[in-house]
Amino acid sequence: MGIIMIIAVDGMGGDNSPKAVVEGCVLAVKEYDVDIIITGPEDTLQQELNKYDYKKEKIRILDAKEVISPNEHPVMAIRKKKESSLAKALALVKNKEADAVLSAGSTGAFMAGSLFIVGRIKGIDRPALAPIMPGKNGPFMVIDCGANAECKPENLVQFGLMGKIYFENILKVNNPTIGLVNIGAEEEKGNELTKAAHKLLKEADFNFVGNIEPREIPSGDVNVVVCDGFTGNTVLKMYEGVAANIFDVLKEEIMSSFTTKIGGALLKPAFKNIKKKFDYKEYGGAAFIGVKGICIKAHGSSDAKAFKNAIRQAINFYDNQIISKIQQVLEKNEQTSIAEFEEV
Amino acid sequence: MGIIMIIAVDGMGGDNSPKAVVEGCVLAVKEYDVDIIITGPEDTLQQELNKYDYKKEKIRILDAKEVISPNEHPVMAIRKKKESSLAKALALVKNKEADAVLSAGSTGAFMAGSLFIVGRIKGIDRPALAPIMPGKNGPFMVIDCGANAECKPENLVQFGLMGKIYFENILKVNNPTIGLVNIGAEEEKGNELTKAAHKLLKEADFNFVGNIEPREIPSGDVNVVVCDGFTGNTVLKMYEGVAANIFDVLKEEIMSSFTTKIGGALLKPAFKNIKKKFDYKEYGGAAFIGVKGICIKAHGSSDAKAFKNAIRQAINFYDNQIISKIQQVLEKNEQTSIAEFEEV
Repeated sequence: MGIIMIIAVDGMGGDNSPKAVVEGCVLAVKEYDVDIIITGPEDTLQQELNKYDYKKEKIRILDAKEVISPNEHPVMAIRKKKESSLAKALALVKNKEADAVLSAGSTGAFMAGSLFIVGRIKGIDRPALAPIMPGKNGPFMVIDCGANAECKPENLVQFGLMGKIYFENILKVNNPTIGLVNIGAEEEKGNELTKAAHKLLKEADFNFVGNIEPREIPSGDVNVVVCDGFTGNTVLKMYEGVAANIFDVLKEEIMSSFTTKIGGALLKPAFKNIKKKFDYKEYGGAAFIGVKGICIKAHGSSDAKAFKNAIRQAINFYDNQIISKIQQVLEKNEQTSIAEFEEV
Repeated sequence: MGIIMIIAVDGMGGDNSPKAVVEGCVLAVKEYDVDIIITGPEDTLQQELNKYDYKKEKIRILDAKEVISPNEHPVMAIRKKKESSLAKALALVKNKEADAVLSAGSTGAFMAGSLFIVGRIKGIDRPALAPIMPGKNGPFMVIDCGANAECKPENLVQFGLMGKIYFENILKVNNPTIGLVNIGAEEEKGNELTKAAHKLLKEADFNFVGNIEPREIPSGDVNVVVCDGFTGNTVLKMYEGVAANIFDVLKEEIMSSFTTKIGGALLKPAFKNIKKKFDYKEYGGAAFIGVKGICIKAHGSSDAKAFKNAIRQAINFYDNQIISKIQQVLEKNEQTSIAEFEEV
């Protein structure tokens, strides 16, 4: 690795790939001080790149003949398609030829590949998908959002720890609050997992504020909410689904008469602000945290700007040395455990 | 029980009790052909009732000295407070002195009391809380919404069966669709529960349409969505939380300038329509289905109109003989199983 950060990009992942991905990369090298390696069929990528004006040496192509589609079985696909744009991008990080990897393709294949090719941080049992969501009063992180449909209580403590480091360093919130997603405010509420996790979280070395009911999540008042991946994915997708439905109905109502159309026109700037406020693309992609490399999953429907934001997020991750900070905390915890053990 | 339906009402449950509850009862006896027995401190209730003009013989008071608060441990409270307004209302159904029971108080105590005092329908292992929610394209049911934080796969099949009968008879949808809440459309996605439940649901005697991702739930395109109570409660509370946040932000934006205020004024009828469309109070309360009596949990913040709607829901439940229809299907299923067993 040189002095300039190098980012590996899966050129063939996402609904709008390679077009939006390539354009996002071009925007990024113009705005940030990074070099990019895009993986995918050389001819196709070169043709896309030729459309833009930029410093040619900033973006290289690494030829990859195969593509993993979102419909393929994630684990099978990543195991079989060694020549896929995704596998080759991940290998660049594994071999330390790149400092981070991004893809807007299959979430499952990206997570499986990050786990198998890049590998876990020692001490983290389950890496987790952790998007930043726009809340009413500020952004919040949901961790895990789908990597682990089943979790053990201790996994949720590790999620809290990683979330804290991310939030503190990238979102610059001092001593961020960590909440446990649960269906009641009281400690004894919930299922077996949340009851056991609550006990462990109370003892953890971060600002645990107790259970948070899903109704309170969208306010963003709690910075990091921890849960198993099934619950987190439900939270994330309900967020998207409810918001989309309300805006659809609002639009229908505005279009229903002349008066409401005028009203809608006058509220255009307001709607624009709201759209911006609730636009999760502003925060980049979802970090897959707990692996030994910077792995960012950009949203499948990313346009060029969203993809550029995901690249910015990878740069933040790198500049703030998130991974080595997680490693340091884990080492410290381990030493404390040994010390406590020796004291007995 | 006479020819006229008799409804037992917990007079002391809910944020606005006894005022809104009593007023809701008065509205109901004026509009529907029912008699009501309200439980609670006689003096307090009589004082409230004296405010209204109605046929005095339609509403009776059953004196109950104790009140269960939402902060009490549900199971403990229902066991200890035999003289509570809730326990006495439930006992009226158990003793067949009333045909249905409603409360806007503690959900936990209501469910525990319905289970202990009224009792399960034979063949239903886990009664479930099943509210009707307003979707973009129509109402939908989420079952279970919090009665059972842990579920077995076969519980979800019973939820589907009960949901189908409710939806068919009360919402008059022919052959309603049943979906399994899951974090992926494919059969093999999800956690252990959803994977096992999917297999059973495919074999069930109703219109199972496969997995439904939480993003799709708010459209209302699938009539009945089944899940464990932890997931259902998360779906319900995210729905409420996201909607409330969006409307809050919209309000703030409208109040931010003169132009947007005018725009907001012109859109008033549109907002009213939207509010009505997404008002879950329109559909009454949440039925606690699977017990041997009609048990309706009205929303804690019910006003008089919402409480009246919950009473209408109990009447629908009664008129359509939901409980005996559930019993009939269970008997039929049992006979089929015996026949299949004998064939072997």
